[in-house]
Amino acid sequence: MAQVKRIVVIGGSAAGPKAAARARRMDEDAEITIIQKDADLSMASCGYPYYVGGVFDDRRMLLSTPAGVVRDPNFFMNAKNIAAKTETEAISIDRVGKTVGCKNRRTGETESLTYDKLIIATGATPRLPPVPGINLAGVTTLQSMQDADYLRAIRDERKIKKAVVVGGGLIGVETCEAMELAGIKITIIELLPQLLTFLDWEMAKLVENHVRSRNADVITESGVAAFLGENGRLTAVKLQNGTELPCELAVVAIGVTPNTKLAREAGLHIGKAGGISVDAFMQTSDPDIYAVGDCVEVPHLITGNKVLAPLGDLANLQGRVAGENAMVGNVATFPGTIQTGICKVFDYAAGSTGLSEKMALQAGFEEIECAINASPDKPGFMGAKMLITKLVVEKSSGRILGAQCVGPGDVSKQLAQWAMAIKGRLTVEDMVNADLPYAPPFSLAIDHAIATAHIIENKLKGRMRGITAAEVKKKIENGEKPFLLDTRGPDEYEEMRLGIGEALIPMGVLRKRLHELPQDKDAEIICFCKISLRGYEAARLLEGKGWRNAKVLEGGIMAWPFAREK
Amino acid sequence: MAQVKRIVVIGGSAAGPKAAARARRMDEDAEITIIQKDADLSMASCGYPYYVGGVFDDRRMLLSTPAGVVRDPNFFMNAKNIAAKTETEAISIDRVGKTVGCKNRRTGETESLTYDKLIIATGATPRLPPVPGINLAGVTTLQSMQDADYLRAIRDERKIKKAVVVGGGLIGVETCEAMELAGIKITIIELLPQLLTFLDWEMAKLVENHVRSRNADVITESGVAAFLGENGRLTAVKLQNGTELPCELAVVAIGVTPNTKLAREAGLHIGKAGGISVDAFMQTSDPDIYAVGDCVEVPHLITGNKVLAPLGDLANLQGRVAGENAMVGNVATFPGTIQTGICKVFDYAAGSTGLSEKMALQAGFEEIECAINASPDKPGFMGAKMLITKLVVEKSSGRILGAQCVGPGDVSKQLAQWAMAIKGRLTVEDMVNADLPYAPPFSLAIDHAIATAHIIENKLKGRMRGITAAEVKKKIENGEKPFLLDTRGPDEYEEMRLGIGEALIPMGVLRKRLHELPQDKDAEIICFCKISLRGYEAARLLEGKGWRNAKVLEGGIMAWPFAREK
Repeated sequence: MAQVKRIVVIGGSAAGPKAAARARRMDEDAEITIIQKDADLSMASCGYPYYVGGVFDDRRMLLSTPAGVVRDPNFFMNAKNIAAKTETEAISIDRVGKTVGCKNRRTGETESLTYDKLIIATGATPRLPPVPGINLAGVTTLQSMQDADYLRAIRDERKIKKAVVVGGGLIGVETCEAMELAGIKITIIELLPQLLTFLDWEMAKLVENHVRSRNADVITESGVAAFLGENGRLTAVKLQNGTELPCELAVVAIGVTPNTKLAREAGLHIGKAGGISVDAFMQTSDPDIYAVGDCVEVPHLITGNKVLAPLGDLANLQGRVAGENAMVGNVATFPGTIQTGICKVFDYAAGSTGLSEKMALQAGFEEIECAINASPDKPGFMGAKMLITKLVVEKSSGRILGAQCVGPGDVSKQLAQWAMAIKGRLTVEDMVNADLPYAPPFSLAIDHAIATAHIIENKLKGRMRGITAAEVKKKIENGEKPFLLDTRGPDEYEEMRLGIGEALIPMGVLRKRLHELPQDKDAEIICFCKISLRGYEAARLLEGKGWRNAKVLEGGIMAWPFAREK
Repeated sequence: MAQVKRIVVIGGSAAGPKAAARARRMDEDAEITIIQKDADLSMASCGYPYYVGGVFDDRRMLLSTPAGVVRDPNFFMNAKNIAAKTETEAISIDRVGKTVGCKNRRTGETESLTYDKLIIATGATPRLPPVPGINLAGVTTLQSMQDADYLRAIRDERKIKKAVVVGGGLIGVETCEAMELAGIKITIIELLPQLLTFLDWEMAKLVENHVRSRNADVITESGVAAFLGENGRLTAVKLQNGTELPCELAVVAIGVTPNTKLAREAGLHIGKAGGISVDAFMQTSDPDIYAVGDCVEVPHLITGNKVLAPLGDLANLQGRVAGENAMVGNVATFPGTIQTGICKVFDYAAGSTGLSEKMALQAGFEEIECAINASPDKPGFMGAKMLITKLVVEKSSGRILGAQCVGPGDVSKQLAQWAMAIKGRLTVEDMVNADLPYAPPFSLAIDHAIATAHIIENKLKGRMRGITAAEVKKKIENGEKPFLLDTRGPDEYEEMRLGIGEALIPMGVLRKRLHELPQDKDAEIICFCKISLRGYEAARLLEGKGWRNAKVLEGGIMAWPFAREK
């Protein structure tokens, strides 16, 4: 009989249990052990904000199988024959002896576990700003089950009135929503000029506007100087510019750092991005050790660069690959990421897949084209909601490099479509005639994604000159006087308008009122409407009539991120 | 000055107006005319069932721009400088003289319109069964605005109690829902053994079960023999088997036939599938004539065969291509279809993209693998809804050939993902590590589509032997005695069970109760649970313990299309 294989997995949150479960399915006889620092196992940590916000009340749902069984050590032993040692910390790896030294956090007892293959899934730790007061009561993160319990209790007590969220990333905005649902007045502090840095600025600004509309404040380009307190309790957050924001709670969400200490001390190779180095088999520099989840770095499939991608879905996929390979040899691969991410922010969703314009430029793509499209997700008569997408493509090939989407509409489907398009290395030409599922309850006859491809195709073919809201704003601030042409109807204009000196000439009468336009055929005329479809028609009309510098304000009023007159 | 180009478009529903509008954007000076038989223009015909069903009440929403302007001849003239002749029928095409003969349906006046380029968008006509009584009052289709008005009036009057829908295709089931919402008791009659023939039988059966659960009857494998009436009004539908179904209304939805008469009479080539032949430029056998929409046939992108694909989204895309090409020469192409379709059926959605198993076999793909996956669309704590997907792949290459999805969950996103995967010619290997937008409000950490890819990967790698519900049912009916192993918990078993002789051994105690299984290691053991994830774990366990014929009932109880004990 073959020798029984021993697999040790360090980490019991997402990637670790997945690796262990997959390993078990490969070999019923192996000895599989999970070492887990926390008391809980296999937590649905991405669900914390929704528990804190009161979307559901039963905390066990974060820890249970779909059939309602809590994933505790008993469950792992009975259902999967996996030994899960909770409240146990891995403190050293002996690569020669092939053992892991562990310490029980309650009893202090230590033991040594022998492995044939080791899987490291040590996760990541929330970064904390190195400022005074970080240890005051009332300063927390939202990373662990304990954090979730702490914040949920605050919600249920309804005593705290003001809180500050430090960091405007994905977890920051999710936390903001959760605390606002708990009736707490929130201010988000972000060091950078925008929230959600996976979005380009103008897209992030639309999200910021929505956050503000829900009674939360946003302060960008401001760092925290100190947490101020009395009697050990937080009373205010002090910004670097001196402002003090009185509050009883501060949630810090400025990102995470991969937990590589154990791997580093064992002499495993750590990559440039700061994560444990692994190959496509999720194998570290030691062939008997795999690493998965938030502690590793993986290739970006477009740039080829190694990146950190601490996301729950990738952790699971990597765990599955490592679990298989550790048990049966290297047969499965994890190719990398396009950093697809999404979050819910009140009535909006916001997300990105592939490269933003900023990221594409940083990665050395010099010849790129972008387009912004605002259009509804389905017909008006089916309860349409708005979507705003920014698409980034490589000019020479038309290859899709990235897409960002925000708004109250079905953002998730849009991003999923673009993620698959990027996976398939599709081009604009592929997307203009994509064959997507159409019926009025689900989409427009020309889906928002296809309409976005049409816009960028028109730009690439020289049939549309786009101009962004930021460019228009700059022109106005610089004292330039482009002719601004709003092509909507008078009722629409009364209801909502930019108020930046535009002339209102509805599309339906534009052919009769061309004399009201600058008669200099080289004059810059910027056309728009609510979403700039009529704006585009107007620009085509003007070009047909000899104007040589007609432009379209991309995404129209819906994508205008600045204050409007109305 | 160049001569003004004259474009004539025959047809004013979807493809025609899109072609005309695109043509206008290519050339401001051209003369563009739409000839439209009906009184209305640019109708959102896919929205009829939702108007009839009362999802919205303002009929003008079907005819208006998003800004609320009715797309009538005035709108087309003012906003687009396009002459739209409504209630006007094209009766002949003179390809030598390049004219179209038209007749005004109110006045009877005729005229001849000269074209440089002609675009045919004559659409399709509902097929009617050649049986007595078809002209009785109360027998209708749901194809035109008049049909929609007629059925909406019936809904509003609330007098009719019973109706029959003849045809269980996409429009049939949408109509069924609409009429049921109007408080009418519905029976669907379908000649074939299943509803929605774009689905494989077992998937269609799940939809049928849902339709029945909503108080509608479904009679398959039955044709209509006659519509019976009194005083010119429908009183019953008589089936070929003699059954008479008393009803006051019958809606016929047995498919459509492309309107090719005009093209045929003009000597244009008609293809094998029965549609007007066009190339990728949407050009007919006459280089001055393009054709688009429901009247044409187009290539299927997987099989290469020409197919009819009368879908509103493709009509629009084709119109856009033809409008551009007709005006500026052949620069744009429409590559073809993968026949992506979706419909809402009460609380379910159902759809397909690419090839079903049946279609793949018909198309000559002999070595295919299929998998059925049932799993929720998001975490339980976020209000998960079930999805059931059947995936079809080519065995040798792993290439995705098709996907079907039904259920109350987010079917639309699933199909969109698969449609893009097929467009990109992706394989199972690409899909097992797809990087999709994950956050709890939108999906599971391992998205349903990725989980489906995992299942088929396990099958292809020989790690899972699947068996379908239909195969299990047949075995039981044939008197075979496979050991049926339900691995759920006792509470789950009490709540819902197949009742086909299964033994209940929960996964958590299976390792201790292996002695209850057949000790013949070649015995057939069929493992399942609610969705067959635990069923799969059980099969892996049994294989690890030496059983050589352990199988997984794919999709578990959720994908079981037959009657259950509970």
